[in-house]
Amino acid sequence: MSEDFENIYELAEKLIKSDNISETKKIEEELKNSLLPHKKGSIGIAQINPIAGNIEYNAKKIIKYINHAQNIGLDLVVFPELSLMGYQIEDTIDRHPIIVEQNVKWLKEISKIVTKTTAIIGFVEPRKQDCEGKKYYNSSAVISDGKIQGIIRKSLMPNYSEFNDYRYFEPSLAIGEQMPETLGVFDENLIKNNNKLTIINGIKYGISICEDCWNDNEFFNNKNLYHKDPIKELAKENPDVFINCSASPTRSKKEQLKHNMLSFISKKYKTPFVYVNQVGAIDNNSYDGAGRVYDSNGNLLARAKSFEEQFLIVNPISGLGKIYPLTNGLEKTLTESKIYTLEYEPDLERTYKTIIQGIKDYFKKTGFERAVLGLSGGLDSSVCAVLLTDALGCKNVFGISMPSKITSDESKNDAKLLATNLGINFTQISIKDMFETTNNCLQNLFKSVESEWEGRYKTSFTPDNIQARSRAILLWGISNEFGKCLPIATSDKSELYMGYATINGDMSGGFAPIADVTKTKLFALARWLNKNRIQKNAIPESIILKKPGAELAIDPKTGKPLIAEDALMPYEFLDEIIWRIENKKESYNDMVNSEFLYEQKNSVSKEQKIEWLDKFYRRMSTSLYKWSILPPSVIVDSRSINKTDYRQPITSSGIDYKGKSEDEICDIIRNLTQS
Amino acid sequence: MSEDFENIYELAEKLIKSDNISETKKIEEELKNSLLPHKKGSIGIAQINPIAGNIEYNAKKIIKYINHAQNIGLDLVVFPELSLMGYQIEDTIDRHPIIVEQNVKWLKEISKIVTKTTAIIGFVEPRKQDCEGKKYYNSSAVISDGKIQGIIRKSLMPNYSEFNDYRYFEPSLAIGEQMPETLGVFDENLIKNNNKLTIINGIKYGISICEDCWNDNEFFNNKNLYHKDPIKELAKENPDVFINCSASPTRSKKEQLKHNMLSFISKKYKTPFVYVNQVGAIDNNSYDGAGRVYDSNGNLLARAKSFEEQFLIVNPISGLGKIYPLTNGLEKTLTESKIYTLEYEPDLERTYKTIIQGIKDYFKKTGFERAVLGLSGGLDSSVCAVLLTDALGCKNVFGISMPSKITSDESKNDAKLLATNLGINFTQISIKDMFETTNNCLQNLFKSVESEWEGRYKTSFTPDNIQARSRAILLWGISNEFGKCLPIATSDKSELYMGYATINGDMSGGFAPIADVTKTKLFALARWLNKNRIQKNAIPESIILKKPGAELAIDPKTGKPLIAEDALMPYEFLDEIIWRIENKKESYNDMVNSEFLYEQKNSVSKEQKIEWLDKFYRRMSTSLYKWSILPPSVIVDSRSINKTDYRQPITSSGIDYKGKSEDEICDIIRNLTQS
Repeated sequence: MSEDFENIYELAEKLIKSDNISETKKIEEELKNSLLPHKKGSIGIAQINPIAGNIEYNAKKIIKYINHAQNIGLDLVVFPELSLMGYQIEDTIDRHPIIVEQNVKWLKEISKIVTKTTAIIGFVEPRKQDCEGKKYYNSSAVISDGKIQGIIRKSLMPNYSEFNDYRYFEPSLAIGEQMPETLGVFDENLIKNNNKLTIINGIKYGISICEDCWNDNEFFNNKNLYHKDPIKELAKENPDVFINCSASPTRSKKEQLKHNMLSFISKKYKTPFVYVNQVGAIDNNSYDGAGRVYDSNGNLLARAKSFEEQFLIVNPISGLGKIYPLTNGLEKTLTESKIYTLEYEPDLERTYKTIIQGIKDYFKKTGFERAVLGLSGGLDSSVCAVLLTDALGCKNVFGISMPSKITSDESKNDAKLLATNLGINFTQISIKDMFETTNNCLQNLFKSVESEWEGRYKTSFTPDNIQARSRAILLWGISNEFGKCLPIATSDKSELYMGYATINGDMSGGFAPIADVTKTKLFALARWLNKNRIQKNAIPESIILKKPGAELAIDPKTGKPLIAEDALMPYEFLDEIIWRIENKKESYNDMVNSEFLYEQKNSVSKEQKIEWLDKFYRRMSTSLYKWSILPPSVIVDSRSINKTDYRQPITSSGIDYKGKSEDEICDIIRNLTQS
Repeated sequence: MSEDFENIYELAEKLIKSDNISETKKIEEELKNSLLPHKKGSIGIAQINPIAGNIEYNAKKIIKYINHAQNIGLDLVVFPELSLMGYQIEDTIDRHPIIVEQNVKWLKEISKIVTKTTAIIGFVEPRKQDCEGKKYYNSSAVISDGKIQGIIRKSLMPNYSEFNDYRYFEPSLAIGEQMPETLGVFDENLIKNNNKLTIINGIKYGISICEDCWNDNEFFNNKNLYHKDPIKELAKENPDVFINCSASPTRSKKEQLKHNMLSFISKKYKTPFVYVNQVGAIDNNSYDGAGRVYDSNGNLLARAKSFEEQFLIVNPISGLGKIYPLTNGLEKTLTESKIYTLEYEPDLERTYKTIIQGIKDYFKKTGFERAVLGLSGGLDSSVCAVLLTDALGCKNVFGISMPSKITSDESKNDAKLLATNLGINFTQISIKDMFETTNNCLQNLFKSVESEWEGRYKTSFTPDNIQARSRAILLWGISNEFGKCLPIATSDKSELYMGYATINGDMSGGFAPIADVTKTKLFALARWLNKNRIQKNAIPESIILKKPGAELAIDPKTGKPLIAEDALMPYEFLDEIIWRIENKKESYNDMVNSEFLYEQKNSVSKEQKIEWLDKFYRRMSTSLYKWSILPPSVIVDSRSINKTDYRQPITSSGIDYKGKSEDEICDIIRNLTQS
């Protein structure tokens, strides 16, 4: 990259941070001059972080970038998919159609100020009410000369994992730009006579929305999801540049796939490709941004930052671009190799940034600022405390150590030391009295119940749960008493799979930061945090070294607090089961018959392995209810148990995951028909 | 209906209740003889209640009815949509493909015993893995002579409210019966040369699956959802009879629409229509059964019971049928009229049966048998207690009165009297000590927090919530200590809309029976229960007469426990807002400008109305999180806040439901562009 380019990117970065009018004007003027040689074909990639449904908030962001684009003389400024509405808005547009009306009103008013550039703005487009099909299109408006010049409509409707587009949006039969007259009075006859391409300053653009570029049958080896390829259709018209407006969340594996695919398409059609992505988190989904440009040979020409709002100025025709470094882990991630590994290092920066963005945006967009969490001196709450500190600032985090009589001095000290290291607010309060009063009350109650009901367990988790629930009462109490404060659920993914989390206890909270991080990865994340944050070693080594356990019960065998792995199974084994199910869709029998990484390092008898697998499926089956009431969390892995992403009926808890052979089935049927 | 027919239906009812082999054989023999004149064209509608994913359980039910059909000599036995898998199975088939393999194995083994009848069995059909599109079809197999003779595949994929078909299933391009060779090795070329109709004993059947019959553009006045009409395609081949295999949950309004539509179609094509529906609840969805037959004039010839498993023998050719009475409220429901009313009477039997089936099946299918709930002496918990008693039996219900110092003697007595009336288990335990210990602990904690954090509320709900959460700890404690027992969340729909429910308190539980019943409807339901159950007046009149209030706080104005309506707004007004939003999608301004039923009866100032509407939208916006962690419940109304049915991002809490005018928007934009 030449010196010239570097200057442009420095100015652009200063521009979006400037909140002083005269400074802004000055930067815009400088940029305008620097960009003169690149004017024809110049594009501003406006990588914005919207709030779903908050049209005014999103519109103001959009107007800001339109103003910049016009003042610095760009040909074009492009916003992500559904940028006025925020993606995803889900069922809200069905129940509260006023927000759709509002997004059209704002779009029309915004159009009036778009006089010196062309803007491409995503919005929810109402279809004519008295026609076949769904009520809305997922559209982008092409705006210039003070009015809407054309509409791009999404054709392919993703409906898997976190995506639900087909629930709301009619797949467009037409590809590329449609006439503006079709807005709001959609008529199937109007879509036929369109030119498909959008011509701006003499350059022909083939514009598509998100999923529409994800269906190249060559790239996907004929395993693509849809029967139509909008990019192929656009390519027939010989565009000079492709543009795609997306809102695509980060998932492990995805960036590599996306890069390969976009590079493949631009090379295949010998046409540069401009990809614009949403950034920021909306509830459970964290969008990574990283908009980019590929040249006509499939080479990366420019790439915006990940997990950050940005205004990236590029010119795919003149070759103007800068490649900002990608967050580690986006580039190449673990699951890509299809082999299970405990080497989490390559994915930790992405994991960290995904969660930080998830916490930040959840709090900001719901109006909360502060978090309170229990600090047990264990790994889960310690990692949560660090993540919250980095997302909200140490003054906005309150850690509470709530020892019971089982809590060791070591745990209490570790909790305090962690809080001191982080500089967060901290206090300690014993739950001994609460536990005893509640336990007395419950024991009396149990006597009454026992006089009517059989089936009292000989050993129960009642005392364990009283502790966890008493702590949650204290945290929710603080949230009730102090403004803008949310309690935090500290459950991790391994334990949620096992149902090893207490309802109304540690799994209760306003947000669950690490619900999609397995225990072995959490250990790696703790070490990574200690090494990579400015403040080194915030998490005391003793917290990372000790074996996880909830310290809710004493193990009768050892006389010491129960170790989680003794109650469950080795975390390395457990996490590999989860990985195999989520990433390879392996069955019980597949796993019995293949060697686990854990088995390569430890001697495990067949009986032991089967015991662990049986326990896994049994516990997972009865955890479905817990998954259904899990607080909002951040999806991190390629697949998760987050209810936005994965849904299983709770009443399917009786599924036979081992399955039966033909012979067994045949025997059962024979018995039924003979009787 | 002739005497003969009555005899056939008495025998059929006895048949499915018989668990004695020789008795069964005898009934089958008798039925066979009675049915001889109706043999050609005879159909058994097997209205079964499956467990999602539990293939063996479902297969055994299917085999039972196949045996009956063969032994009594029916031409055909028809099962609902996805009958082997259970509808809906949701994402489970993606993550655990073994259950799909199993459902194919069972299907093939079952086929071998189908030698004397034709069976139509719904199953999840895997598509060839290396082709475009989704992994599965939603299919029904046509089986006779010991093997699969053909496949019917669903074309229209519902993806709204509780439906998510497009998430998993490839829409079939072909209509009607396809060749058996296409099973598992699907090839687009094979689908072209099919005959569409299924010929059995010389009669031509046009078979479709669920949504495929819901797209007649004449009936829907060109506002139909899809662009293709499978029934129209089938009709071109001149079938003698239509058959549709469905799994369609009950919703208010739906039965009338369904009846009108099916009657319309059979009349339009002058072809009898056989409609087979699933019965039973799967998590939040309650399927009402009520399979039926229309003759070629659109008249109802036969109809199975609602909310009950049944084997209904019909013959649309010979005119054999019986019309079982429809549950009140299915026939004609409130919302149908598009006018809000407090006359809930017509819908109460349906409401009651929907909830009872929901509780029964949730408990049975998850392996639970007993319920424990707090009895406050208020309406919500009282109605829940009655519903649980009727669903689970009085011995399986434990009511706990948990008074605090605010609880009135009247409430305590009412709770006890209710329990006595119902014959359920009952005990009383004071939460005074728990409250005081917890409150002391919290007050100490608040002092520590206050030394670091500003923003402590002058008035808080902390003491209220301590009471609600202490009670939940006791209920969950019983669930932890006694086998097969679930605690019950007693929140109602009006209060959930207002967030007037305590997290980890009254809104916490394993199941929430009345979460989709508004308060005014609950009053009507209480009176209906008192009048219509065998045991009259189980709910003490004083419970129905008293004004609802959580008895968690004292109103400083009256010195008495706070009345909910004083904290919120009149329930009659609140429930009408909910109705207008859910049924008419009205906006804030629509409601300001239209007259409420409440306004016809009470004088309400404009300011007062606006205050209530503002409060509604403000409270609803901050209740989205609570909706996301709501326990499983039964969907009853035409629309709900159940997360299976309605999803809204929690971070969209800042939506401006009033909206802005063009002028206001224009002003904002002008300010932004001038600066």
